Amino acid sequence: MTTTFGSLSRVPTYDALPGHRLVLGADAPLKLDCGIDLAPCTVAYQTYGQLNDARTNAVLVCHALTGDQYVAEDHPVTGKKGWWEMMVGPAKPIDTDRFFVICANVLGGCMGSSGPREIDPKTGKPYGLSFPVITVGDMVEAQLRVVRHLGIERLFAVIGGSMGAMQVLQWASRHPEKVFAAIPIAGAARHSAQNIAFHEVGRQAIMADPEWRGGDYLNQETNPTRGLAVARMAAHITYLSESALHRKFGRNLQDRQALSYGFEADFQVESYLRHQGITFVDRFDANSYLYITRAMDYFDLAAEHGGALANAFRGTTCRFCLISFTSDWLFPTSESRSIVHALNAVAADVSFVEIKSDKGHDAFLLDEPEFHAVLSGFIAGSAELAGLRR
Amino acid sequence: MTTTFGSLSRVPTYDALPGHRLVLGADAPLKLDCGIDLAPCTVAYQTYGQLNDARTNAVLVCHALTGDQYVAEDHPVTGKKGWWEMMVGPAKPIDTDRFFVICANVLGGCMGSSGPREIDPKTGKPYGLSFPVITVGDMVEAQLRVVRHLGIERLFAVIGGSMGAMQVLQWASRHPEKVFAAIPIAGAARHSAQNIAFHEVGRQAIMADPEWRGGDYLNQETNPTRGLAVARMAAHITYLSESALHRKFGRNLQDRQALSYGFEADFQVESYLRHQGITFVDRFDANSYLYITRAMDYFDLAAEHGGALANAFRGTTCRFCLISFTSDWLFPTSESRSIVHALNAVAADVSFVEIKSDKGHDAFLLDEPEFHAVLSGFIAGSAELAGLRR
Repeated sequence: MTTTFGSLSRVPTYDALPGHRLVLGADAPLKLDCGIDLAPCTVAYQTYGQLNDARTNAVLVCHALTGDQYVAEDHPVTGKKGWWEMMVGPAKPIDTDRFFVICANVLGGCMGSSGPREIDPKTGKPYGLSFPVITVGDMVEAQLRVVRHLGIERLFAVIGGSMGAMQVLQWASRHPEKVFAAIPIAGAARHSAQNIAFHEVGRQAIMADPEWRGGDYLNQETNPTRGLAVARMAAHITYLSESALHRKFGRNLQDRQALSYGFEADFQVESYLRHQGITFVDRFDANSYLYITRAMDYFDLAAEHGGALANAFRGTTCRFCLISFTSDWLFPTSESRSIVHALNAVAADVSFVEIKSDKGHDAFLLDEPEFHAVLSGFIAGSAELAGLRR
Repeated sequence: MTTTFGSLSRVPTYDALPGHRLVLGADAPLKLDCGIDLAPCTVAYQTYGQLNDARTNAVLVCHALTGDQYVAEDHPVTGKKGWWEMMVGPAKPIDTDRFFVICANVLGGCMGSSGPREIDPKTGKPYGLSFPVITVGDMVEAQLRVVRHLGIERLFAVIGGSMGAMQVLQWASRHPEKVFAAIPIAGAARHSAQNIAFHEVGRQAIMADPEWRGGDYLNQETNPTRGLAVARMAAHITYLSESALHRKFGRNLQDRQALSYGFEADFQVESYLRHQGITFVDRFDANSYLYITRAMDYFDLAAEHGGALANAFRGTTCRFCLISFTSDWLFPTSESRSIVHALNAVAADVSFVEIKSDKGHDAFLLDEPEFHAVLSGFIAGSAELAGLRR
C-alpha cells in the first residue's frame, strides 16, 4: 500500500494505484446529470476499520478538490501522510477502531476513478475533453454505488470539508434516508461568483499552456505542468488567510539578507507558493482540475429545488453538524449560516459551530483542537443516538 | 491627442504615443535604489490646466499598477476615456480650471517612460530583463525631475490610489518640503504577504508562457499575451469585492438558459473576467507588469526607516488626507489606519475617512459620491490654507 510511484505523469495506468475498484458495467451505467449514461465506469476507493455485522457503523469521507481516497495512509504517489490522518485513525475523532471509514476518489478525479485521464474504452485512448462534464450530484451517485456494493443500507455519517461539504449536502438532500448524520465543514450550498472567478483563472492558466493541446496532452505526450502550477498557486492563496500568511511569512526574505533587485523568489511567501505549484503537478492531472472545478462551479442546491434551499431538506431525518472557520474567506461562515437557516426552516436537527482560527479555509485539514473536540463530541453523541456500541 | 493606435504590440516606438517627454542625459542620470545610474532616461507625462504665475497650483497625480499618464483624456491605444476623468477636469474634485495637473507614466511602465519595453541605447534593442529593477522610490525620483523641469518648487498636492498611494507616501517621506498636501487613497505603507503572493501568481503566469522567451519576446517577435491575460484575470478579482461580484453577476448565466456541461464561459462572471484579460494585453507590456509588481512588493516604508513607520514622517509639515474603502480587501482600512497611527505619533496634520462602499479596491476609480465629496472638501480647505485663489 505504501509503494511510491513517483510523479503521476509516470504512473502508466490506474491499475498501478493501490486500493479497491468498483467497476460499473453497461448493465448498471452511471446516469449523469448532463444526460449521458456512463459505462463502463470505475470508482476507486479505500476503506479503514471494520464494518460491523449490522453494517451500521460506516462513515463516508468526501474529499475536496485536490484530495483523494488515501485519507489515512501514505499517499502512493507522493509518499506523504494521508490528507486527514489527524482526523481518521485509531483513537482519532473518526475512530477506525469503532467506525468503518470509506473514501472514494471523486468521479472526474485522477487517482483511479473514471475521469478525463482514463482510457475511453470506445477509442482505446485517454478521454481528455471527451469525458462528460460531471457534477457534485454525479460524484454522490458514484459513491452511492460503492455504498450499495458494500451492502450498507444507511451510512452512520457522511463528512467532508470544502467540496467534500458540497457532497455531504448533496447526500443529505438526495438520499436523506441513507444518512444518519451529515457533517458539512467549511462548505456552501452554492459556489459564489468570486469562487467561480478564481476557478476560471485556474482553468484559463491551464488552457493557456500550449502543452495542454486542447486537452489532448496525454495522447500527444505533453503535460501542461506550468499552467497547472499557476492554477494551484492562485488557488492556494485562497486556502489561507491574510493573517496566516502574515504570521507564517510576513515580508521575510528567503535565504538572503537583502532584496536581490531581480525576479528570483526574494520573499519566503513567493518561494512557498512556487513550491506548492511545483509539487502539485506531480500528483494531479490538469484536465481533472478543469472537470472538478467545473463541478464545484455548477453546484447550487437551491437552484435544484426551485430556488429555495429549504426545499432541499424538507422532511429530512438527518442530524446535521455544520462547522465553519472565522478566517475562511473562500467558504465564509455566512455560507454555512444560510444553510443553517434553511435547515431551521424545515425544523431539521442541526448544530452549528464557528471555530475561531486564523488558518483560513485550510483549517479543516489542520490541527485545530477546538474543531477536533467539536467533531468528536458530535460523533460520540450521534453514535449513542444511533445505538452504536462503544 | 486622440489618435487610436490599436494594440500596444503594434505601436512601433514610444515616439508614436502623444504627450510630453523629459529626457535625462548622461549628465543627469537617475540614481536608482538598486545602485545603478540610469541614463539616458525618459519620463513621459501629461499636463492639464494652467500653471499659475507663482507656480503654486500644481497637483501631481500618481497612477496605479496598470494606469498611465492619460488621466483625463482619451487613451491613445484603447480610445477609451481617461482613467480618472471622474476626478480630474473642469469643475471636478481636482478642478483643472483651478489646478495644474501633472501625471507621469511610472518608470518601468510601457507608455513612454523608460522601462523594459524601451530600446537600450547600448544595444539598440529593447531592454527586456536587462532593464534594472526599479522601486516606488525610483518612480518618485523620476517624477521629481519632471516637477523640477516645470520650475515647480512645491506641489500643492500629490494624490494617488493603490500604487499611486505608495508614491504619495514616498513623496511625503522623502520630500516633505515639496508637498503641501498628501492624499494617499486605498494604499499601504508596505505590501502585505498576501499581496506579494497574488503578484507572484501573475508573474509566474507570464513567465510560464513560452512566448515570454525569458523576457526577450520583443526581440524574438513573440508576445506572452496568454500569460499576461491570466495575470490580469487573477489580479482583477482582487480589485473587486465579493459582494460587488455577487451584485453584478451572481451565478447568472451568459447568453444561455441552462448550463452547457462544457468549458465555455457559462457564467457571466467568467465571460467578464475573460474580457478583462483579453482587452488588457492590447494596452500593456508583460515585462512592465513584472517590473511594476516587483516595485510594489519591495515597497516597505517602515523598513526604510529602521522598522518604525513614524520615522518616515518625523517633523513633516505636509497635510495628510487618507481615504480607504470598507470593502477593499487588497488594501484594507487597517493598512491606512496604521499609517494614520504613525502620523499621529509624529503629530502630523492628518484626516482619515473610511468610505462605505461595496465596490472593493476599485472604488477609487469609480463613481462614489461620498468619496468625491470628501476629496473636494479636503482640497478646497487645503487650497484656502495654501492661499490659492479661487
